Amino acid sequence: MQSPRVDFDRLRGFIALAFAAVGMRERDAEAIGRLMAEADLQGSDGHGAIRLAPYLRRIRAGGVNLHPEIRVVRERSAMALLHGDNGMGHIVMKRAAELAIAKARDAGVGWVGAQWSNHAGPASLYARMALDHGMIGLYFAVGNANHLPPWGGLEMLLSTNPIAVAVPAGDEPPIVLDMATTVAAYGKVKAKAAKGEPMPEGWMIDREGKPLTDPKRAGEGFLLPIGGYKGYGLALVVGLLAGTLNGAAMGSGVIDFNADVATPTNTGQAIMAIDPAAFGEMDEFRHGVDTLVRELRASERMPGVDRIWMPGEQSHQRRISYAREGIPLAPAVWTALDGVAADLKIASLERLT
Amino acid sequence: MQSPRVDFDRLRGFIALAFAAVGMRERDAEAIGRLMAEADLQGSDGHGAIRLAPYLRRIRAGGVNLHPEIRVVRERSAMALLHGDNGMGHIVMKRAAELAIAKARDAGVGWVGAQWSNHAGPASLYARMALDHGMIGLYFAVGNANHLPPWGGLEMLLSTNPIAVAVPAGDEPPIVLDMATTVAAYGKVKAKAAKGEPMPEGWMIDREGKPLTDPKRAGEGFLLPIGGYKGYGLALVVGLLAGTLNGAAMGSGVIDFNADVATPTNTGQAIMAIDPAAFGEMDEFRHGVDTLVRELRASERMPGVDRIWMPGEQSHQRRISYAREGIPLAPAVWTALDGVAADLKIASLERLT
Repeated sequence: MQSPRVDFDRLRGFIALAFAAVGMRERDAEAIGRLMAEADLQGSDGHGAIRLAPYLRRIRAGGVNLHPEIRVVRERSAMALLHGDNGMGHIVMKRAAELAIAKARDAGVGWVGAQWSNHAGPASLYARMALDHGMIGLYFAVGNANHLPPWGGLEMLLSTNPIAVAVPAGDEPPIVLDMATTVAAYGKVKAKAAKGEPMPEGWMIDREGKPLTDPKRAGEGFLLPIGGYKGYGLALVVGLLAGTLNGAAMGSGVIDFNADVATPTNTGQAIMAIDPAAFGEMDEFRHGVDTLVRELRASERMPGVDRIWMPGEQSHQRRISYAREGIPLAPAVWTALDGVAADLKIASLERLT
Repeated sequence: MQSPRVDFDRLRGFIALAFAAVGMRERDAEAIGRLMAEADLQGSDGHGAIRLAPYLRRIRAGGVNLHPEIRVVRERSAMALLHGDNGMGHIVMKRAAELAIAKARDAGVGWVGAQWSNHAGPASLYARMALDHGMIGLYFAVGNANHLPPWGGLEMLLSTNPIAVAVPAGDEPPIVLDMATTVAAYGKVKAKAAKGEPMPEGWMIDREGKPLTDPKRAGEGFLLPIGGYKGYGLALVVGLLAGTLNGAAMGSGVIDFNADVATPTNTGQAIMAIDPAAFGEMDEFRHGVDTLVRELRASERMPGVDRIWMPGEQSHQRRISYAREGIPLAPAVWTALDGVAADLKIASLERLT
């Protein structure tokens, strides 16, 4: 069955309207609406409109500060630490990215960490912010629920702690890697559950180490790290850089934001901007990326492989086609948004003008 | 069979003597001897003394500059680009690490890239240099031979491009992650070949996609990335950060330093230092790392698992025990070092005083 489609601006507007309806400042509601709709626009459907109802539930339970005073608490020429004041992660990390880019403009690189932030959606959205300034962006985050035990362990003390890297190209689309350090991100598990589809083997195991494929039973097992102990190590160091370094939650301090909607999460994230113009001529860098992309794409393929993709290339194509043809929204998501509209007494997505 | 053991200082001295014998400046020979012996000391046996004969072969073929003028070619307050002048990677990246640390002291973070460098041994050695200054170190490198095709491809256009991250703790050993973005590093394949042992399935596949387990047949196949397309994406972005950004070799420009000993490799590497003291109280950070380590270590284990290890913890234990009891050297490596001694007419490892 084909999912019904929605126009980007309509989805963006609806989400902004919902946040404004619960009392958020208009500017913040607009910014979050845009970022959440952008998640769906690029196919990050585990992090877009599907999150609206849970976010609102959290706001109503007092788990998120609707009027945060986001502020710099530590600063040097190439770094800053932001206190998110328990605001929505989207506006905290948008601010962090802007600050990192400004610092990189002068210092060559800029690193901004955040404490007392919240879930901010797909990692790639923030790494991508550097692209508009001709810069490379890197993003690290502590995930908002622990689904990963240390290697050899059974207690879920680590999260999927994602990494995103965005690299500007010339004529080619930018290279945008956005990956959980687990084989699958938990958002993908939720998306499978919402669609009523089973998970492939290798995403999760149960406590006996057996494959777990029913996404509705996800609570009984845990995610597997990529490359075994290597993925465990990556999840841990990403957590140290994004969490511990910022005085944010790590390990047993991480709040499961699905199970507990009221306790502030003290989510930690970090963003880095690198200005290639500090390293050499920008045109040469862009040309070098293009050359590499074309070489990889044109290289010999395994039998049965139609195309060699760059990281982020499929999302890039979706951004273009969904902007033109509308964003497909799973019926369950559409129903959830209608529920939000009825609940908040705002125009439904379909009726929004 | 137990490998015979050698004292750290003896191994260090022998390697330095060998490099001095071919005309290297004494200070550089000493620095490289120390770093290569340190590789063996921590159990990175694919990157230690086993590399001496190949390095010397390269030097004699004119593939490495014995008297490089390593210089800063681009600089801003938080970054620099080094020209390695085709010197040994060890001295280029030691200089890069020192500069990154000095920059982080002021700016909070420091990033130093290198072009026209060479193979530098284990990534962790350079990330670890930040630890002595109470800083976090990150290291990225383009590997020195392409063993990895893009995901879905057959042409080996990417290398194992490693990542290392070193994080200081308090009373606990530092956390030191050092990982190739492939399931196994090529150095581990070489170590298996030197020991005459087969590789486990999953390290390499042949061109038909079948498991390749004979390390002597490594040239007929390629390494597998961790987490499939994720590891491919990681290898690519590490290569962009360490290679393309620095104007160093990437893709088909990478010289296979095993097959070609004469052509300068233009190896690209990058190191970053982050000063936790810029983010808050150093004692609190160290305490936070200790607390996390202890929580992970004490957590419930899977049946049959004796201990939960932190990344780098086993290397740390080897550093202590090998320093006391000597470093085990595989007989094949010992024989190769005796060959070097005879060749250069210097005292053998056994006779060195």
